Amino acid sequence: MATMTNVETSFDAEGAASGAQSHVHVFGPDQPLRLDGGVDLTPFEIAYQTYGELNADKSNAVLITHALTGDQHAANAHPATGKAGWWNHMVGPGRPIDTDKYFVICQNVIGGCLGTTGPTAINPATDEPYGLNFPVITIGDMVRAQAMLVEALGIEQLFCVAGGSMGGMQVLEWCASFPERVFSAIPIATAARHSAQNIAFHEVGRQAIMADPNWQSGNYNAEDSYPSKGLAVARMAAHITYLSEAALHRKFGRNLQDRESVTYGFEADFQIESYLRHQGFTFVDRFDANAYLFITRAMDYFDLAADHARRHGLESGTLADAFRGTTTRFCVASFTSDWLYPTSESRQIVHALNAVAANVSFVEIESDKGHDAFLLDEPELFATISGFIGASARARGL
Amino acid sequence: MATMTNVETSFDAEGAASGAQSHVHVFGPDQPLRLDGGVDLTPFEIAYQTYGELNADKSNAVLITHALTGDQHAANAHPATGKAGWWNHMVGPGRPIDTDKYFVICQNVIGGCLGTTGPTAINPATDEPYGLNFPVITIGDMVRAQAMLVEALGIEQLFCVAGGSMGGMQVLEWCASFPERVFSAIPIATAARHSAQNIAFHEVGRQAIMADPNWQSGNYNAEDSYPSKGLAVARMAAHITYLSEAALHRKFGRNLQDRESVTYGFEADFQIESYLRHQGFTFVDRFDANAYLFITRAMDYFDLAADHARRHGLESGTLADAFRGTTTRFCVASFTSDWLYPTSESRQIVHALNAVAANVSFVEIESDKGHDAFLLDEPELFATISGFIGASARARGL
Repeated sequence: MATMTNVETSFDAEGAASGAQSHVHVFGPDQPLRLDGGVDLTPFEIAYQTYGELNADKSNAVLITHALTGDQHAANAHPATGKAGWWNHMVGPGRPIDTDKYFVICQNVIGGCLGTTGPTAINPATDEPYGLNFPVITIGDMVRAQAMLVEALGIEQLFCVAGGSMGGMQVLEWCASFPERVFSAIPIATAARHSAQNIAFHEVGRQAIMADPNWQSGNYNAEDSYPSKGLAVARMAAHITYLSEAALHRKFGRNLQDRESVTYGFEADFQIESYLRHQGFTFVDRFDANAYLFITRAMDYFDLAADHARRHGLESGTLADAFRGTTTRFCVASFTSDWLYPTSESRQIVHALNAVAANVSFVEIESDKGHDAFLLDEPELFATISGFIGASARARGL
Repeated sequence: MATMTNVETSFDAEGAASGAQSHVHVFGPDQPLRLDGGVDLTPFEIAYQTYGELNADKSNAVLITHALTGDQHAANAHPATGKAGWWNHMVGPGRPIDTDKYFVICQNVIGGCLGTTGPTAINPATDEPYGLNFPVITIGDMVRAQAMLVEALGIEQLFCVAGGSMGGMQVLEWCASFPERVFSAIPIATAARHSAQNIAFHEVGRQAIMADPNWQSGNYNAEDSYPSKGLAVARMAAHITYLSEAALHRKFGRNLQDRESVTYGFEADFQIESYLRHQGFTFVDRFDANAYLFITRAMDYFDLAADHARRHGLESGTLADAFRGTTTRFCVASFTSDWLYPTSESRQIVHALNAVAANVSFVEIESDKGHDAFLLDEPELFATISGFIGASARARGL
């Protein structure tokens, strides 16, 4: 197990697999997080889960990075919903990311709402929840916070960083910002920058939240109100983008919900309506509306080529520049029916990696499940990742 | 000009081209509209515009059917916005639908909010606006109302019925319900039934409207409030589906709005955000929130094969059954980048028409403008329609 020095933990005796409690690492006033927006976030905490055992030379650590509405509970039951971890197909004993072999870390991102410092945290300047006074964060900020945690755990180099969607953006950011600290990387169903359409869908979600009078300019905690309707609409709009038209057609088609004919009204006549409403209204129980604003904003700001150029004081830069000199081994995966981050986005990443002669394998997986395929039971994805991790482990001498 | 008997008109002396005023035809208690939902709508009015001159044997009438947020102002300035008619590229002197040759009729659909009876109209039972007490209507209801208007104008057979999107659904409905009254038909960028994804996007819009406390269960007129925020969110979500990813990328990409760098805040940093907000907030000035609910519902209910089977008391039916025996000439058009009603939907229509040996031509037009291409300056679309209408006119002896 990792040295737990510096780790204030509420980890219970049953271990991470019991699910409810996370480790929490506190970064005090001496360890501020300098944000891309120019301010320091301090103090801050990171909530995380671990699975498996860190080996003696600390060379078997795998960092899992989560998507927009994900959290640190990748492979244990979610404390609020009781549901299985969001990547329980992928992470566990004998799974592609095998916790019998690897020490797996999964943390909640900065700006999140599952224990890591975000807009629901208390602002030390006011003793009130931050709300909209939380500083706008970026994917780069999330990753620098993770790097501080990994360093605090005494791990010099991660054997692997893996994640899908926004998790994949963090994987790419890790490889660009800390190339020597990533032995292998698995960005799945992701993009190196948010497209106009990606931003547009997020903007609709944000406007839906902000249109809810219970949002109260982000001060809903203070007023005992909650913008659940707005957040539910945001989730519904986003949820459509996670599924392919084929998946929706197969799952629902025009099937009616518990009735033999349409009712000529505005009840949920169709199963797809009932499903979407359920997605919206269960989401509000597990996610914070302001966190949704901040995390979607971080994704919209993500543009790895431009970010890398800016941080290095260059007028402009290509995506290849962000990866120049990398020795990381990459496995890039996309899904044929993912229209949110389509294969063309993965190809741009692969082209950039090829341009700098990186070690990269790329697979486009045939699936009609849409973007959400990275979270689902996709044997070809599992086979791809098992094979890549096995080969990387041999190269690493594990 | 058409005989104006039975037409109560507020048409001004300058003619339709001046834009502000529409003809209004009143259908009194002796002429109820029997709705698919089982109730009679009575009395009701239809607001419509005409362009060009009806010939002596009334054989040159073209009916234009509008899309979800369209109206009767196809080729004249919109009375509320002052903008050019929504199909002014297509309809006018020397245009593909040539008002020097044809008598063009365009009416506002039942359930609409531009003069035709819809939820903003006064419910004679209560002397209050209908609001949610307006009966849920269908595409079939819209078309039967149009058929009553066409009959009132003394036109036995329309030379052509043409429309895109929901307008295309009405075209198909006309051909299935009144085959002998349609000489030629042009359904563009449409589908013979709403898919699960189509329904899902509409449901998000409806939930956004209903989430707005100003909506007040549809009674906002009575209370001097208006659900503008909810309706704006609905419009923004829908608007994304009208454009292709490529069009958004070309038009906006990640360009910033009047600033050199991102602001690390929630202002509209990106042009796409500013554009979407503008689309949302200008829409509420020209459209009624309840009308948006009723018309999206009508589209979701549309399933021509099932509707035709139900009306004819059959257990089930194919789309081909709906067209069996047709002598109408069809021109079906789709756009390569339309992901709302993709080419596959048009192909299903064409396959059904082929199965009953209909006279059908089909063109998939190369365009990166997405669904909205049917409203835009698309030379290949114009050439297709000019050619089809010219050939149809010769066949009709015009």
